[in-house]
Formats: sequence, structure tokens, C-alpha cells
Amino acid sequence: MDLLADQFIQFNPQRGTMEGAKVVERRLSDLRGYFVDEAAYEAALAQEDSLVYTVSSVMPAEGESQLHYGLGMIMPGRIGAEYYLTKGHFHAWRPAAELYIGLRGEGVMLLEDEATGESKLVPLIPNSAVYVPGFTAHRTINTGKVPLTYLGVYPAQAGHDYGLIAERNFRKVVLAVDGKPTLRDRVL
Amino acid sequence: MDLLADQFIQFNPQRGTMEGAKVVERRLSDLRGYFVDEAAYEAALAQEDSLVYTVSSVMPAEGESQLHYGLGMIMPGRIGAEYYLTKGHFHAWRPAAELYIGLRGEGVMLLEDEATGESKLVPLIPNSAVYVPGFTAHRTINTGKVPLTYLGVYPAQAGHDYGLIAERNFRKVVLAVDGKPTLRDRVL
Repeated sequence: MDLLADQFIQFNPQRGTMEGAKVVERRLSDLRGYFVDEAAYEAALAQEDSLVYTVSSVMPAEGESQLHYGLGMIMPGRIGAEYYLTKGHFHAWRPAAELYIGLRGEGVMLLEDEATGESKLVPLIPNSAVYVPGFTAHRTINTGKVPLTYLGVYPAQAGHDYGLIAERNFRKVVLAVDGKPTLRDRVL
Repeated sequence: MDLLADQFIQFNPQRGTMEGAKVVERRLSDLRGYFVDEAAYEAALAQEDSLVYTVSSVMPAEGESQLHYGLGMIMPGRIGAEYYLTKGHFHAWRPAAELYIGLRGEGVMLLEDEATGESKLVPLIPNSAVYVPGFTAHRTINTGKVPLTYLGVYPAQAGHDYGLIAERNFRKVVLAVDGKPTLRDRVL
């Protein structure tokens, strides 16, 4: 009984890397339309197409009883007053939950209930876990000064639905107000 | 949208505790029949009914799309040459996988395929993940000198089947041979 591929995976919480994982990189140019301050976005992009985040994914097996997982790393930074963030998504299979585990840095998860539109912020920090229920859009945000790294574990058939968020974004934004992460209505 | 119970949980990898979790404690007296060296077991128990491991579990929601998780802590120790271990289990829902994430210490997972009876050892150490496929009995073993702590994440409906292992145990044991964890056939 040999070790399966992806049965034992090592990761680096400092560097935000995971051995043998499939890596997706998102730069500023991939995130047009996601930040509320469009002028600040264009100015930042004109300076440099900075790396905003990476997601390294491991998919050991497929099927309803299986799990997939990923390691995310979001760089520290802001566009205007808005912290660097992930695009955010629903699961394609809406009831699917996800468990996040903070590894390094300081961040928050922005959750938005699909049915009610209600939002909440949950801290994402080392030695803690955040449960994202089904039917909930979720975005990860780095509110600190170092890279934010975390694991996410989800049912293999959860899938990712980025379309709805790309179209209408989250209703709330997380801004630095007096240096503190603050939840505000999106005003365009 | 208030924070759900169990939506944000903090844990302590050093102490092996998790806030607000349901804790199960296993002492030597709970583990009669699990260690291969019965004389060494009775001698150890006569001295002290030591704590062998704890499992702290969080069950945020029920249903096929949900996840449960737990934090395990196994104390360092041996019964004869055999390292302190968990009882080990199959999932009641046999196809269910589980993802383990090492937090502290040095250990191994003993996996046994239900259909073939084949065994393997996978390291369980900090900054690494072990994927336990479905249809596989799994036991966690502390081969180090400090408490071994780890997280386990699994589908909410996985369930635990301890009966089969209680009856016939694993086919292999992990013994300290020249100070190194070594996989051997169980000899009674």
C-alpha cells in the first residue's frame, strides 16, 4: 500500500506555499472592478501590477465523501482605504460549508448570506478556525502588515462560483478607518 | 447576522485545547486491549491511570454538505515498546475521507485499508496535512517526546465506527525499535 499522491503534503505558513499543489496567482490586473475606489486602483496598477494573493490547491480525490483543501496567501496592502482581498465566491454546490484555519498574520473573512444579503466579519488569525456555512459568499481580507496565510477545507464537490460576485460584488467593504478594519456599505 | 455558535473557534496547539468544544478524555483504563503488550499495560495501569489522549470536537452544523472537526492531543509515552495511541476508527459512513493537520510534536498515522488489509504509516508533523481516504481505519500515534496535537476535519455525516477495531484491532503495531518508530506485525 504505497503513499497516494497528495496523501502527505507539507506547507510553509511563512511563505504561503504548499508542496505539489496547483497554484493560482492573482495580481492587481486580475482584480479590476473588485475594489471600491477605482481611481486608486488605476493609480496603483499604473505603478506596478503587484501580486495580491495566491491560492495553492490540493484535490486528493473526487466524489461526495471526499475533501479538497487549499492554502491561501494574501499580501499586505491597500487600494485607497480598502485592504487587499480575494475575489470571493459562493460554492457552486450552494449548501457546501468550508472550514478556514488561520496560519499567519491578521485578517478577516467577510461573509454574506445569499438569501438575506446580511453581512458579517469574522476574525481570521493563527490558532483559530472559521466556519463558513453553505449559501454564503465569502471573501478573505488581509488587515495586517505581513502576508496573511490560511488553510481552507471543503467538500470535494463544493465547486467555486465566482460569477455572481464578479457581477455585483459584496454589499459591504472593509476599510481602514483610523487604522482599524471597519465594515461599511459599498458606495460607488 | 450574528456570529453563529461555533463559527469562530480558538485553539491552543501547545495545550491541546479548543474553546467551547466537547472534550473526550481517554485514560489507560479506557484502553484495555488496545496495546499489544498486556503485561506492560497492567503494570503501567497499576502505577497510575494516566491520561493518554483527549479529543475536542466542534460540530457547527449537521447535514451532508457540512463539516465537523476536532483537535486531538496524545501525550508522549509507551506501553512496553508501543507508543501511546488513539483507539482508531473507521467512519460509520465508510466512503468519508478526513484531513489531518499537524500542529505540534511528532507522530504518525497508521492507516489500514478495509478491503485489502494493507497498512501504511504517514508522518503527522507541524505544517503538514495527511489525507485519510474513505474505507480506511486510522489511528494516531505519538512517537515523540512532547504532546502531539493535530486537527482533523471530516464530513459532518462521517460518523465514527469504533466497534470493528475494538474487536480485532489493527493488524500492525508501531514499536520503538532502536528508538525509531517501526511498523511490525501484531504478535499476541
